[in-house]
Amino acid sequence: MQYIAAAIAVLGASIGAGYGNGKVISKTLESMARQPELSGQLRSTMFIGVALIEAIPIIGVVIALLLLFK
Amino acid sequence: MQYIAAAIAVLGASIGAGYGNGKVISKTLESMARQPELSGQLRSTMFIGVALIEAIPIIGVVIALLLLFK
Amino acid sequence: MQYIAAAIAVLGASIGAGYGNGKVISKTLESMARQPELSGQLRSTMFIGVALIEAIPIIGVVIALLLLFK
Amino acid sequence: MQYIAAAIAVLGASIGAGYGNGKVISKTLESMARQPELSGQLRSTMFIGVALIEAIPIIGVVIALLLLFK
Amino acid sequence: MQYIAAAIAVLGASIGAGYGNGKVISKTLESMARQPELSGQLRSTMFIGVALIEAIPIIGVVIALLLLFK
Amino acid sequence: MQYIAAAIAVLGASIGAGYGNGKVISKTLESMARQPELSGQLRSTMFIGVALIEAIPIIGVVIALLLLFK
Amino acid sequence: MQYIAAAIAVLGASIGAGYGNGKVISKTLESMARQPELSGQLRSTMFIGVALIEAIPIIGVVIALLLLFK
Amino acid sequence: MQYIAAAIAVLGASIGAGYGNGKVISKTLESMARQPELSGQLRSTMFIGVALIEAIPIIGVVIALLLLFK
Amino acid sequence: MQYIAAAIAVLGASIGAGYGNGKVISKTLESMARQPELSGQLRSTMFIGVALIEAIPIIGVVIALLLLFK
Amino acid sequence: MQYIAAAIAVLGASIGAGYGNGKVISKTLESMARQPELSGQLRSTMFIGVALIEAIPIIGVVIALLLLFK
Amino acid sequence: MQYIAAAIAVLGASIGAGYGNGKVISKTLESMARQPELSGQLRSTMFIGVALIEAIPIIGVVIALLLLFK
Amino acid sequence: MQYIAAAIAVLGASIGAGYGNGKVISKTLESMARQPELSGQLRSTMFIGVALIEAIPIIGVVIALLLLFK
Amino acid sequence: MQYIAAAIAVLGASIGAGYGNGKVISKTLESMARQPELSGQLRSTMFIGVALIEAIPIIGVVIALLLLFK
Amino acid sequence: MQYIAAAIAVLGASIGAGYGNGKVISKTLESMARQPELSGQLRSTMFIGVALIEAIPIIGVVIALLLLFK
Repeated sequence: MQYIAAAIAVLGASIGAGYGNGKVISKTLESMARQPELSGQLRSTMFIGVALIEAIPIIGVVIALLLLFK
Repeated sequence: MQYIAAAIAVLGASIGAGYGNGKVISKTLESMARQPELSGQLRSTMFIGVALIEAIPIIGVVIALLLLFK
Repeated sequence: MQYIAAAIAVLGASIGAGYGNGKVISKTLESMARQPELSGQLRSTMFIGVALIEAIPIIGVVIALLLLFK
Repeated sequence: MQYIAAAIAVLGASIGAGYGNGKVISKTLESMARQPELSGQLRSTMFIGVALIEAIPIIGVVIALLLLFK
Repeated sequence: MQYIAAAIAVLGASIGAGYGNGKVISKTLESMARQPELSGQLRSTMFIGVALIEAIPIIGVVIALLLLFK
Repeated sequence: MQYIAAAIAVLGASIGAGYGNGKVISKTLESMARQPELSGQLRSTMFIGVALIEAIPIIGVVIALLLLFK
Repeated sequence: MQYIAAAIAVLGASIGAGYGNGKVISKTLESMARQPELSGQLRSTMFIGVALIEAIPIIGVVIALLLLFK
Repeated sequence: MQYIAAAIAVLGASIGAGYGNGKVISKTLESMARQPELSGQLRSTMFIGVALIEAIPIIGVVIALLLLFK
Repeated sequence: MQYIAAAIAVLGASIGAGYGNGKVISKTLESMARQPELSGQLRSTMFIGVALIEAIPIIGVVIALLLLFK
Repeated sequence: MQYIAAAIAVLGASIGAGYGNGKVISKTLESMARQPELSGQLRSTMFIGVALIEAIPIIGVVIALLLLFK
Repeated sequence: MQYIAAAIAVLGASIGAGYGNGKVISKTLESMARQPELSGQLRSTMFIGVALIEAIPIIGVVIALLLLFK
Repeated sequence: MQYIAAAIAVLGASIGAGYGNGKVISKTLESMARQPELSGQLRSTMFIGVALIEAIPIIGVVIALLLLFK
Repeated sequence: MQYIAAAIAVLGASIGAGYGNGKVISKTLESMARQPELSGQLRSTMFIGVALIEAIPIIGVVIALLLLFK
Repeated sequence: MQYIAAAIAVLGASIGAGYGNGKVISKTLESMARQPELSGQLRSTMFIGVALIEAIPIIGVVIALLLLFK
């Protein structure tokens, strides 16, 4: 049962991170193409945003690993 | 059974945080590209917003950890 | 069974809060970029709105904790 | 079984309130940015609207608590 | 079994009322911002509309309470 | 089993009425803001429309009550 | 089992009628606001349309009542 | 088991007829408001279309009645 | 079991025919309102199209009847 | 079990054919209204397209009939 | 069990082919109406595209037949 | 059990290939109608793209055949 | 059980690759039609993108094969 | 049971990576076609973004392999 639980946790982490990151990074690229002189600032904001988004999925991955090796 | 419960809780936390943060941060990047002189104010509002959004998922993660080590 | 119930309650709270807050805060950022001179008023309305939205999910979290430690 | 029932009730309350409030408050912010001189009237209408929307979810929360402590 | 039934009834009531009211009130706010001189008439129509929408969910809540205390 | 049936019937009634009424009343408000001089005619058409939409859900509620007290 | 069947039949009737009627009546209101001089013709077409749409759901309700009192 | 089958058949008939008719009749109303001089021709086409759409759901209703009284 | 099978077959036939016919007939009405002088040709194409769409659902209905009376 | 299988096969055939044909024929009607002088060529392409789309669902129907009379 | 498997395979084949072909052929018709002088080239590309799309569903149908007569 | 597995694999392959190919080929047709002088280059890119998309579904079909004849 | 697991893995791989590749290649074709002189650069970026997207599904296929021959 | 878990984990990884990467790379191609002189910077941002997105799915794949060979 705990194997299934690990799989569900990592499935949620993959989809959540893929959706959130995909949205943020694609919007960064669109904004860079519209205002090239802001690309440094946009990219640094993107890194902060990606870090904030991946905080929860990484805990999800840790929980999956805890479930796996318990 | 409590392993599955932990996985469901962390799945909800990942998806909720990924959706909400992805929307907020991508809109911040779009607004920064439209009005570069407001980027400081927008980024500080983004941090407050991300903190408000991640409040509930972090409790979800805590509940998942409580379920795991109970 | 009550572990699953706690997980479902906190899943609903995460998704509801993530969706509602994500919508409100991203619209605040968009409005601030369109009318920068209104940013104080918009941000205070945003705080009220986030508090109103998170009222129900926080009760959901409390119910999850009650289910967990009962 | 009544724990699951409480969780389903509070899940519905969270999602219903999150969706409805998110829509109303984000539209209020958009309208305030378009017509700043109407912000008082819009905000008071928003409070009435949020109260009307949250009426049913709060009963849902009460039912969840009744189920929990029965 | 009747606890689950009460939860399903109140879940439907929350989502139905949240969706319908959210749509009506957000459209009222949009219309008020477009034609401020009609705000009294729009708000009174909104109250009638909300009452009509919440008629069914309130019966749903009553049925949930009947199921709970039967 | 008949409790679940009553809950499903009232869930369908809530969602159907919430969706249909929400659409009709929000479109009435939009039309009133576009052509204020037609507001009487629009509002009377709205009442007829809401009555026509709620005809089926009210029978659903009656069936739910029949199932409850049978 | 026949109680569940009655509930499913009335659920389908509510959702089908709510969707179809909501679409027709909201389009009638929009068309009346665009061409007020056609409002009589539009409203009579609306009544015919609502009657045609509700024909099947009313048979669904009758089947639900047949299932209930069989 | 045949009661559930009758309910599924009538559910499909309600939703199919509600969706198809709602689309056709709302488009008729929109077209009548755009070209009032064609309203007779449009309405007769609408009647043919509704008859063609409701052909299958009515057989579905007949099958439901056959299942009920078999 | 064969009653359920008949119901599933007729459900698919209703939804498929309702979706396809609804799309074709509503597009015919829209095109007739845009080019009234082509209405004969459009209506004849509509009849051919409806016949082609309903070919499969009618076989579905025949299969449902075969399942019913087998 | 093979009755259910026949029903699933014919359900897929109905929905697939209804979706594909509905899209092709409605686009044909739209294109005919835009360029009436091409209507012969468009209609012949439509017949080819419908034949190509219905190839697979007709095999699905044949498989359903094989399952039924096996 | 293998009857259900054949039905699932042919259901996937019908829906996949219906979706893909419907999209390609309707886009061909739209492009032919926009540039009639390219209709030969577009139609030949359409045949290649339909052949490429139907390659996988036809193998699905073959697998369904293999499952049926095994 | 392995028959169901083969059916699920070929269902995924059909839908994945149908969606991907349908999107690519319909976009090729649209681009050819917009820039006819590029049609050779677009068609060769389309062949490469279709080959890349169908790589995975063909392995899925191979796995289905392996499951079938194992 | 491991046959079903292989089928689920290859289903995910097919849909993920079909969706991602379909999006990337169709956007490449659209961009080539808009700026023909960039077609070499766009096509090379497309190859890199397709390789990056198919990395995960190919591991999924490998896992499916491992499950099959284990 | 652990085979199913590995399959669910790799399914989530495939879909998450396919969605996220597909969005980022297609937006890169669109931006390159709009501003060709920025293509180097856009492509390097794309590589960083793809790496950030695939971080979680690759852990999902690793977890799937751990589940497989445990």
